[in-house]
Amino acid sequence: MSVKLGPNRYGKAETRLVHVVREGPVHRIKDITVSTSLSGDMEAVHLTGDNASVLPTDTQKNTAYAFARKHGVGQIEEFAQLLARHFVSSQPSIHHARVQIEEYAWDRAGPHSFVRDGGEVRTCVVHHDRDGRGTVVSGLTDLVVLNTAGSEFHGYLVDEYTTLPPTRDRILATAVTARWRHTGGTRSYAGSYEKLRAALLDAFAGTHSLSLQQTLYAMGERALSVCPEICEVRLVMPNKHHVAVDLSPFGLDNDNVVLQALDRPYGLIEGSVLREDAPDAGFAWE
Amino acid sequence: MSVKLGPNRYGKAETRLVHVVREGPVHRIKDITVSTSLSGDMEAVHLTGDNASVLPTDTQKNTAYAFARKHGVGQIEEFAQLLARHFVSSQPSIHHARVQIEEYAWDRAGPHSFVRDGGEVRTCVVHHDRDGRGTVVSGLTDLVVLNTAGSEFHGYLVDEYTTLPPTRDRILATAVTARWRHTGGTRSYAGSYEKLRAALLDAFAGTHSLSLQQTLYAMGERALSVCPEICEVRLVMPNKHHVAVDLSPFGLDNDNVVLQALDRPYGLIEGSVLREDAPDAGFAWE
Amino acid sequence: MSVKLGPNRYGKAETRLVHVVREGPVHRIKDITVSTSLSGDMEAVHLTGDNASVLPTDTQKNTAYAFARKHGVGQIEEFAQLLARHFVSSQPSIHHARVQIEEYAWDRAGPHSFVRDGGEVRTCVVHHDRDGRGTVVSGLTDLVVLNTAGSEFHGYLVDEYTTLPPTRDRILATAVTARWRHTGGTRSYAGSYEKLRAALLDAFAGTHSLSLQQTLYAMGERALSVCPEICEVRLVMPNKHHVAVDLSPFGLDNDNVVLQALDRPYGLIEGSVLREDAPDAGFAWE
Amino acid sequence: MSVKLGPNRYGKAETRLVHVVREGPVHRIKDITVSTSLSGDMEAVHLTGDNASVLPTDTQKNTAYAFARKHGVGQIEEFAQLLARHFVSSQPSIHHARVQIEEYAWDRAGPHSFVRDGGEVRTCVVHHDRDGRGTVVSGLTDLVVLNTAGSEFHGYLVDEYTTLPPTRDRILATAVTARWRHTGGTRSYAGSYEKLRAALLDAFAGTHSLSLQQTLYAMGERALSVCPEICEVRLVMPNKHHVAVDLSPFGLDNDNVVLQALDRPYGLIEGSVLREDAPDAGFAWE
Repeated sequence: MSVKLGPNRYGKAETRLVHVVREGPVHRIKDITVSTSLSGDMEAVHLTGDNASVLPTDTQKNTAYAFARKHGVGQIEEFAQLLARHFVSSQPSIHHARVQIEEYAWDRAGPHSFVRDGGEVRTCVVHHDRDGRGTVVSGLTDLVVLNTAGSEFHGYLVDEYTTLPPTRDRILATAVTARWRHTGGTRSYAGSYEKLRAALLDAFAGTHSLSLQQTLYAMGERALSVCPEICEVRLVMPNKHHVAVDLSPFGLDNDNVVLQALDRPYGLIEGSVLREDAPDAGFAWE
Repeated sequence: MSVKLGPNRYGKAETRLVHVVREGPVHRIKDITVSTSLSGDMEAVHLTGDNASVLPTDTQKNTAYAFARKHGVGQIEEFAQLLARHFVSSQPSIHHARVQIEEYAWDRAGPHSFVRDGGEVRTCVVHHDRDGRGTVVSGLTDLVVLNTAGSEFHGYLVDEYTTLPPTRDRILATAVTARWRHTGGTRSYAGSYEKLRAALLDAFAGTHSLSLQQTLYAMGERALSVCPEICEVRLVMPNKHHVAVDLSPFGLDNDNVVLQALDRPYGLIEGSVLREDAPDAGFAWE
Repeated sequence: MSVKLGPNRYGKAETRLVHVVREGPVHRIKDITVSTSLSGDMEAVHLTGDNASVLPTDTQKNTAYAFARKHGVGQIEEFAQLLARHFVSSQPSIHHARVQIEEYAWDRAGPHSFVRDGGEVRTCVVHHDRDGRGTVVSGLTDLVVLNTAGSEFHGYLVDEYTTLPPTRDRILATAVTARWRHTGGTRSYAGSYEKLRAALLDAFAGTHSLSLQQTLYAMGERALSVCPEICEVRLVMPNKHHVAVDLSPFGLDNDNVVLQALDRPYGLIEGSVLREDAPDAGFAWE
Repeated sequence: MSVKLGPNRYGKAETRLVHVVREGPVHRIKDITVSTSLSGDMEAVHLTGDNASVLPTDTQKNTAYAFARKHGVGQIEEFAQLLARHFVSSQPSIHHARVQIEEYAWDRAGPHSFVRDGGEVRTCVVHHDRDGRGTVVSGLTDLVVLNTAGSEFHGYLVDEYTTLPPTRDRILATAVTARWRHTGGTRSYAGSYEKLRAALLDAFAGTHSLSLQQTLYAMGERALSVCPEICEVRLVMPNKHHVAVDLSPFGLDNDNVVLQALDRPYGLIEGSVLREDAPDAGFAWE
């Protein structure tokens, strides 16, 4: 039998890091989770357990903490790039680094007090390789939104297994996971994030929806229209079904007033919207 | 062998209910999870499977949905009382009802669009029995807060298993679960909730802490001082440890600037603060 | 305003501990999670932050690890008692200790290799106070069982909100959480556990059920009948609904052959079965 | 601005399906979760909300239930293929179907009673397109394994951020997620699964490990050596760190006897092992 090693990577996942900026009596904090993955000359470690090309995952964790102390965290995309470039440039056996960061928001409750804003999580995935190529994808997860009007669903294919009635008025609810690919000239990742988030929300709230796919496309299109610094948006949107409870046995009507929120199953809509002239994505989405 | 039935109850747990108020073009929503538990003449159903005294859990669910349509949801404490009283008063075999509700907050994103506020969850537990006695406990969970200054820990017992060094400066972080008992004259549960939440936050942020217990007591005391309508506060506060990473091997100091947030184990502080003249709690906390 | 401290306790929750017995080439392991809670002279720490009566939660964690090294883990009830007695007897300010342990099972896959048995989790809660009183409650969680025959539900109360049809044949599924109180003379906690688990399973499988309450009672009664060392069993059993999917639109019958397993809501049945002469439970169930 | 629709798909996720085989007094059950995803002529629905090419996710769910009634479930790979082919062949607008199934194991506790085997979950992902191309990937998740001997880690890269000491004896623990690609001639998916699982376990237990990568490769190689019907194995293996607690402050040694199981961060090792002559994977891993 002749077998070989295929694609592989390794790293430290979910390093929890809180950075406190203590310049003066009013503190600031950054709360992030860092995951790093490296690949390169990894034949030996797989075939014989020779670790000479392996930078231990423990060292990757240490590096994240030390870099936070040296450089601060700042925008997560920049901190991720700093780490990715370091791993590739400092170790010849490492050819490629992928760094993924989640950031949790906190609101101020005092000069050195904070309360967690439990809403959506800001994310990024950064790649960097030894040829100097790099990609930056920003995003968010858990942006939970709901429209109580302006959503229809009808005109779909009907086959022998169809029982769903068409509707001119339904609840539309989803938990948005969005990721967007930067083309390279982003000046402010913070500003870009705020514009993107607002565009996604506005398009969700402002689109009269004939299908969740239409809403998804409108959100991606809106994001691209307000953010020239990005070239592609990918969205994953579960259709969190809310069904009107049948109250007719109790002599009550129910025109989408009382709803049961269902857990499972759920529709799942995934799609990409991109510029006609978007450059090749390379390893950006990996 | 002679055995008997001890304490028991049954009900429908986690009924997901969204209520849309459609008065005019600007909608409002309430998003709650209802759990009902009943007890009473339940010997027969346990011993012989005779269900003649059993109001099915399916009917309990239906009642929650129907009542939302008939009466709206309003304040969760009032909706819970409505349900609890109904079960006890409508069925002689039901002697006691317990209704628990969780409410999730949404922010407005348009006239009929909403975005989930992922912060703390508002809760209540209501009891009502056939003698007309009732209790109302309101609360919140998942209020995650953190102080980057003003927290010390020293002067504790030292034994042969002590390795923790005393500290004059530590991060204090917790996820507050608070419940408070009403004495009966609450005029506005919404207003009471807002005052309580603010008092808890203020006391957390404003207390120079020598121990998490001291902070807990200060929070309970502050809540009682601003809310005459309640007589007892119970708090459960995990000490979510954040430890300064040792960066000295890399030639870096770290005066609580870069922290590792730990998952487990965690300290767990539980306590009650109540008025000297608080009436007996009865079944309020069950 | 005059307020006071009510019931309180503090401790270290969820200390993850794996103990390897390395006597000879064939190893054995114990995998547990330990939570300790202490109470006593705690006025000062709450009111003024004076920690002189406080044994830090970090020390409690250290003690669990050190005791595992000194004494091994053995039966979780015995390890919990060892810890509880130590805290109370070694510190005059600690009047009461509660120790809770979860144990995860592993199967052997080689002399020093193991594969996690992902089934039910074994549990215990032990109390010990400075007057020498102690209680031991053992238990299990996540024992998921299902009967495809022998379950009916009819003859229940019918009111204006009833829509559930009676049935002579339904799926009965639950995830059993059981806890049982020892009277004091248990010689082998391991043996007791095995007998109890088998009794619960046998009674679940062997009871023709007219209600989940009847099944619950039968399980408690069976457990008491085979285990003289226990005096009370408490069971919490969600009714994990499995509904026959309506396939009639597709010209198919469905006599409980194809079922949808529902997540929420679910029925929730809680009850206790105890001996007529069971001694007072004291703080056993806290 | 000129934008376009990129890759997209939609479907029904996590349909919970239990199938009872009631041939005679001894029942059998299959407990699965089905997720279907379709793609094809989906420009219109995204751009204008025209659903004429959309087979609703509700219909996909109905089809899964109806097919279970008509054909039984059998091996999940076969049931997934049945569904995938149906969607593509019955609707010209659907060009590609992806069906993912999870199966949960149950042990027998009586002729019509079952107890959930909470161990690993069996999985499959099947693709089928309108050109008749199809792929089958089988797998498992949550196979949690641990070696208390035979694991070393040393000889790795050392840089300025290295603090990890080399070790000749460590605990090796992981939760295996494995997926394997069939070449087309698999006669028994059940038999293949059993052989694969045993091979993975044997290789984990039997490999003296100098790195988790080496163990991963050995597991993939072993699987390929015993299962000619597969051509590639992909493994994701978190390194679930177990660290010896420092008991020296208490005068106790600890030669990997008492360990703290850590939650986060964790190492994460991902890799593929494949035959030299493995055919192109196409869309198999999507």
